[in-house]
Amino acid sequence: MKPPSPRTLRIVVVNSQAGAGLDEHSAAAQSRRNAALRIGLLESGYDIVASLPADIFLPGRIAQIQPDMIIIDSESDARDVLEHIVIATRDEPRPIVLFTDDQTESSMDAALAAGVSAYIVDGLQAERVKAVLDVAMVRFRREQKLLDELSDTRRQLADRKLIERAKGVVMARHRLSEEEAYRKLRNMAMNRKLKLAEIAQRVLDVEDLL
Amino acid sequence: MKPPSPRTLRIVVVNSQAGAGLDEHSAAAQSRRNAALRIGLLESGYDIVASLPADIFLPGRIAQIQPDMIIIDSESDARDVLEHIVIATRDEPRPIVLFTDDQTESSMDAALAAGVSAYIVDGLQAERVKAVLDVAMVRFRREQKLLDELSDTRRQLADRKLIERAKGVVMARHRLSEEEAYRKLRNMAMNRKLKLAEIAQRVLDVEDLL
Repeated sequence: MKPPSPRTLRIVVVNSQAGAGLDEHSAAAQSRRNAALRIGLLESGYDIVASLPADIFLPGRIAQIQPDMIIIDSESDARDVLEHIVIATRDEPRPIVLFTDDQTESSMDAALAAGVSAYIVDGLQAERVKAVLDVAMVRFRREQKLLDELSDTRRQLADRKLIERAKGVVMARHRLSEEEAYRKLRNMAMNRKLKLAEIAQRVLDVEDLL
Repeated sequence: MKPPSPRTLRIVVVNSQAGAGLDEHSAAAQSRRNAALRIGLLESGYDIVASLPADIFLPGRIAQIQPDMIIIDSESDARDVLEHIVIATRDEPRPIVLFTDDQTESSMDAALAAGVSAYIVDGLQAERVKAVLDVAMVRFRREQKLLDELSDTRRQLADRKLIERAKGVVMARHRLSEEEAYRKLRNMAMNRKLKLAEIAQRVLDVEDLL
């Protein structure tokens, strides 16, 4: 599977309000927003693979469709939408663009914490959509790299702590020097085809049981 | 010094082109952009403390002024501006908002790498300025937190490696057990009022000399 060219990004659009319960004015405003978004996406050559409501089926649908990007069009409070989006992207992060009129700082904070790569207030103009999506994609990749680096460094640190503790246990239990204990752990790991940190965790688990 | 309220953020505006060498059309376009930015900032209650050209004096001026945010208005290529901005914010990160017409992905990438919190293409409308700055500030804080966490975790990992190596050196040199070597390092650190990692570094430096 080769990566899609930027021109054929597969996009899922999520609408926060299904149109139910809106007065005439709001309904008209929403359909204008919707049209601007669709025109912007289509004119820039994006592929709108689905337009979905924000409900409990959203995570499942996104897992099925595997879109390259998720665009949320949420006139006001986007928190309900974001809740479903967080579940849908927890295991497989995807770039998320949020168009909204919600200018409260707490909403911005919640959205960014949920992984939103672009939070655009009152800026849904067809001719700007492509630039917004481009920046969002670049930011998403950058942020993912940073998050990967953080989790990798954290894991290295945790592994070292585990191995240190396990070495101490082996030294005490078998009356070995540090070097001998380390070699013993290494051999155990090699024999069982496990990583050093995994065998360390098992040693500590057993120690807990005794 | 109490933190400034969002309404009185002190802003430095950096212009990429001083207006020299522009034809009539470009000069008119630039003065329109400039006006929209100023109107947007002033109407939203921001304090424009300085409007500076992007030159070698920029880092010094920013260090003097200590603005809460830097806004770059760069019609086309912003790379020259960003070079000066990177130097100006290397030691003291500040939120940076970039308004530009440059839509190339490499420019976006370079800008985000330089710490730009908001990269806005073709979106300089007075009424949108406040929302853009609000999102930029939230994103800046979030990214700083992430970067702090990463550098903190990296430091912890590096410290552990240093201490491990120093312990090995002390064990071999003084024929001590691991525990004794660790205690020796601890005592050396306490006596000299240094951190364990610092004393570990000195032990390794001396070992290198010998």
